[in-house]
Amino acid sequence: MRPVAVIGIGKTAFGAFPDRDLRSLAVEAGEKALADAHVSPSKVEAFYLGNFAGPSFVGQNHLAPYIAGAMGITGVPATRFEAACASSGSAFFHAVSAVGAGLYDVVMIGGVEKMTSQTTPKVTEILAGAGDMAGEGRAGATFPALFAMIARRHMYQYGTTREMLAAVAVKNHANGAKNPQAHMKKVITMEQALAGKPIAEPLTVYDCSLISDGAAAVIIAPLERAAEFTGKAVRVLGIAQTSDQVALDQKEDITTFKAVREAGEKAYKMAGLGPNDIQFAEMHDCFTIAEIIACEDLGFVKKGDGGRYALEGCTALTGPRPVNTSGGLKAKGHPVGATGVGQICDIAMQIRGEAGERQIERHSIGLAQNLGGSGATAVVTILGAA
Amino acid sequence: MRPVAVIGIGKTAFGAFPDRDLRSLAVEAGEKALADAHVSPSKVEAFYLGNFAGPSFVGQNHLAPYIAGAMGITGVPATRFEAACASSGSAFFHAVSAVGAGLYDVVMIGGVEKMTSQTTPKVTEILAGAGDMAGEGRAGATFPALFAMIARRHMYQYGTTREMLAAVAVKNHANGAKNPQAHMKKVITMEQALAGKPIAEPLTVYDCSLISDGAAAVIIAPLERAAEFTGKAVRVLGIAQTSDQVALDQKEDITTFKAVREAGEKAYKMAGLGPNDIQFAEMHDCFTIAEIIACEDLGFVKKGDGGRYALEGCTALTGPRPVNTSGGLKAKGHPVGATGVGQICDIAMQIRGEAGERQIERHSIGLAQNLGGSGATAVVTILGAA
Repeated sequence: MRPVAVIGIGKTAFGAFPDRDLRSLAVEAGEKALADAHVSPSKVEAFYLGNFAGPSFVGQNHLAPYIAGAMGITGVPATRFEAACASSGSAFFHAVSAVGAGLYDVVMIGGVEKMTSQTTPKVTEILAGAGDMAGEGRAGATFPALFAMIARRHMYQYGTTREMLAAVAVKNHANGAKNPQAHMKKVITMEQALAGKPIAEPLTVYDCSLISDGAAAVIIAPLERAAEFTGKAVRVLGIAQTSDQVALDQKEDITTFKAVREAGEKAYKMAGLGPNDIQFAEMHDCFTIAEIIACEDLGFVKKGDGGRYALEGCTALTGPRPVNTSGGLKAKGHPVGATGVGQICDIAMQIRGEAGERQIERHSIGLAQNLGGSGATAVVTILGAA
Repeated sequence: MRPVAVIGIGKTAFGAFPDRDLRSLAVEAGEKALADAHVSPSKVEAFYLGNFAGPSFVGQNHLAPYIAGAMGITGVPATRFEAACASSGSAFFHAVSAVGAGLYDVVMIGGVEKMTSQTTPKVTEILAGAGDMAGEGRAGATFPALFAMIARRHMYQYGTTREMLAAVAVKNHANGAKNPQAHMKKVITMEQALAGKPIAEPLTVYDCSLISDGAAAVIIAPLERAAEFTGKAVRVLGIAQTSDQVALDQKEDITTFKAVREAGEKAYKMAGLGPNDIQFAEMHDCFTIAEIIACEDLGFVKKGDGGRYALEGCTALTGPRPVNTSGGLKAKGHPVGATGVGQICDIAMQIRGEAGERQIERHSIGLAQNLGGSGATAVVTILGAA
């Protein structure tokens, strides 16, 4: 594979936008990425779109040409990728693989979701479709319930506490408050986090990510051509997507995500790096416990220590290895299909030194981890300064 | 790109199967393809799934790992591709591109849809999501209406008649009656076709494809490795996917599908062949007019002559260039997400000489054309004896 670079990034704010439709969000992000990369629509050789459930949320399907066409991109492959909450991470993986293999030079990857036009119970039902509806879904186990079971088991096996979960929420809210594009810019205290309204014990409302609208897009090209477009290219050092069983009851151990471990190993190997080389990360904190487990599965700490790692401030903005400087899914927001490409944008912003108030000092190698369902899909990407 | 071969094929029957769920259909097709290719699940390096609207039809999303896991395929990229009725054609295109580029050796591509658990009005509404819901959908223009407009315009511009449309239906029903896996095995006469119940003038029920359940799967590998697995490999000579605007009102001419023309040109170029080299084809006859237009767009006849071509028997099983020997979407059935890969299986069966009662004489080079929506996605594949 030849080296691949991110040559342009674009994001909408994440939030609840009753006056915006899905397509306008995706087009806004895509056009920002084109402008950032100095690429005209006619130069885009393929369009990869990550979207989880546009048809269920807003009744519109066939979204890739629908969005590409609105940007003036026609006559090229335009395809929607669905892999639950890792939909745009998966689209990015497939696009990087294609450019790396020499199939295309200039490719756009978008991610979008428009969720807030549905009620919360309806959103929860649609999201449950990322689990096993014949088993988990029929039993009423929506995602908060599944991750509550995971959290309980992690507490039981490793002594993880409510304070450790809350520490993730407090940190991500603090980071989100510094991100102008975050859905929720609200600093919370440990006391508030611990006293949050229960959702599924032991998870409270502060342990759960947000229901958001939003879109993100990036343009990629072979590294050797990056300088034609931009002086701010970011290199893809390693990337992998893997899969596992969907249903939680088919997993040997629910306190770890095998797909994340395997994707991490592959991405590290491709990059020629190890966990200690990663300076910062965007992790898939759909629930606080998921960030804790990701830090373990990707080797930042040993198994079972993820909770303490957060509580001790190691992942804070000023800590030795900042995680979710964007605010994460918890505070930045989680428009499902936009999350994977959104993470790539956030990592790129740090590497480019454009993260404003939340800019960190050591920002040359970052990792993005995007999770689908309760771990059936995982995409891990390592980005570095070009 | 290195040459790619189809080394295994598998299909369920297409039909209405109230006792079968989506996953069991997809697994049946996948396991047949594995057996046909003599490949064990652990050798599959990636799973590409085409599915249009599983979440809307049956409430299950995240379908790629859900199905792959049930076949014992984990630890590899498992991704769902959505491109309306060309979903599995698109999955096949991306998989062939990846194997051709050297990213993988052994890959499974599946396609599945489970439609009959919904009422016909609900199915029609879900299918309408492949068009522009903010325009066409809001105006009540479902797909029969869109293709009725296309048919009317084709009649007006080129003198195409009701008899010509009906000739496509009569032929495809005759072929379907010889296909043990077809949804509808019912021979119809020209009189019956002309007297069909009106759906959207000038289209009658006999001009519309079926609402079906079903699945199809293929295994691909580099041609140079095909002999390790099978003596019946079929070579991918050319393949392309392209896109166009979704809404009909944004097209210059609704009697032709620009994306089909462009995909055809690219596929012909890759194969080093022209229309006259194609001995038979599976065309996307979601409506009879679509098969007529496909014959024109792919250069089998000149623009406007597609109707006469069908009426004169040129595309019949015993004609000079048989089209839809399987019965097509009209009689074989149209489980949307399964259709693209199903076409690949049907072409491969002819090339392998396994088409039974409908086996044709000249069967070494065949073309499959898969259409999404009213032409916003097109995938054209040319297959030949290896």
